[in-house]
Amino acid sequence: MRYSEQQIEGRNAVLEALRASKSVDKVFLQDTAGEHGLDSIIRELKKHPETKYSFVKKERLDGMSKTGKHQGVIAFIAAYEYASVEDMLLEAEKRGEPPFLIILDGIEDPHNLGAVIRTANLCGAHGVIIRQDRAAGLTATVARASAGAINYTPVAKVKNIARTIEELKKRGLWFVCADMGGELMYELDLKGPIGLVIGNEGSGVSELVRKKCDMIASIPMKGDIDSLNASVACGVLAYEIVRQRSF
Amino acid sequence: MRYSEQQIEGRNAVLEALRASKSVDKVFLQDTAGEHGLDSIIRELKKHPETKYSFVKKERLDGMSKTGKHQGVIAFIAAYEYASVEDMLLEAEKRGEPPFLIILDGIEDPHNLGAVIRTANLCGAHGVIIRQDRAAGLTATVARASAGAINYTPVAKVKNIARTIEELKKRGLWFVCADMGGELMYELDLKGPIGLVIGNEGSGVSELVRKKCDMIASIPMKGDIDSLNASVACGVLAYEIVRQRSF
Repeated sequence: MRYSEQQIEGRNAVLEALRASKSVDKVFLQDTAGEHGLDSIIRELKKHPETKYSFVKKERLDGMSKTGKHQGVIAFIAAYEYASVEDMLLEAEKRGEPPFLIILDGIEDPHNLGAVIRTANLCGAHGVIIRQDRAAGLTATVARASAGAINYTPVAKVKNIARTIEELKKRGLWFVCADMGGELMYELDLKGPIGLVIGNEGSGVSELVRKKCDMIASIPMKGDIDSLNASVACGVLAYEIVRQRSF
Repeated sequence: MRYSEQQIEGRNAVLEALRASKSVDKVFLQDTAGEHGLDSIIRELKKHPETKYSFVKKERLDGMSKTGKHQGVIAFIAAYEYASVEDMLLEAEKRGEPPFLIILDGIEDPHNLGAVIRTANLCGAHGVIIRQDRAAGLTATVARASAGAINYTPVAKVKNIARTIEELKKRGLWFVCADMGGELMYELDLKGPIGLVIGNEGSGVSELVRKKCDMIASIPMKGDIDSLNASVACGVLAYEIVRQRSF
């Protein structure tokens, strides 16, 4: 299992986890918190709107506690063991398949990230590469949205997507990104070793990353609005790769 | 515009909207609520966990108010003008295209419903049919997730999906549902007048509805988990229909 949830207990441990910006999913506080000196934790929680918290009775905390020393606070942290891009290439080699990677250039919505990991698993991609900064990390919401795929499909976090693309090009991969004004996806050759690049929900693929791509694929658009949901676009393109590889 | 947000003001109006189970998106209450007799509204709000509410200062309510008589409470309601299935068939005829409808057999997640409406708009479907009971309705979350598509692509609500399928079969439509153990989607003929049926996130297409379908399509699955996210599966199949119709 690459993904697990970790329980931490006690004021300092929880405070440190929050300050270190670990992926704290949920915090349970004793409902008489004020009296127990949990104010600094509550202050810290207000800086992390993504972390849910609730006040519960001491008995409930006692029941949950594994250490017997919860000091009025228990937190759940998402712990994920990131893979390396090298692992993914090795996996492709092991399976005797041309590498097929999905690269996310700044996906922010955890539901989208989870859905993409799920798609990656089912379309036979060898891994998902995400950006370290700002983008969604691997939280409990992502794990749920991935429907378990997070435990099978490796996810790597890189500092610089453009540089990673450069390095992977040297290893023989071709890169295709989804964007308007590209060639119709059916007309591109997507059979070889490939990296599929999906951009941010609002702003799409960044200029620098687009320039590194060998191909720009466009999905036929017959409607009134601009673009598909990012995880749907990823699914449509990933399955065009699957189709081309099947025939 | 099929979708709009409506602002209602005053204790009785908000209370009635909540009791009538209208799609109340958000309620603003004056922070001195207790003194203003808003207790019955707060009790009603607790029965509707999907409705967000917050306490604000009187000055903020005064600024938002359009009637000048907010009585300490202002609510926002999603108002959507549903289409009829007949409208969708007429639209197909007008465009000179074989009808292409997307039928949702119990999608519950509003993000998925929004993403499906978005996909329907872009893949050129003539409408989306949803089930009246239990399933997600057209709320503000759905509208946001649809990225505006809700204003262009008609959505109809029907009591009984199986009966609607029966009626549409008499009008010449063929039905394909996404499910395991079907024929590979590439091997089906999806070019004619078609209804694409997508099942519930957890339980898939219901038995009764599956029996009414002419074809069961399966998306190639190479991974470890069971199924794609419902809106991604819808996108992949909808674009297989687009591909087949394009060549």
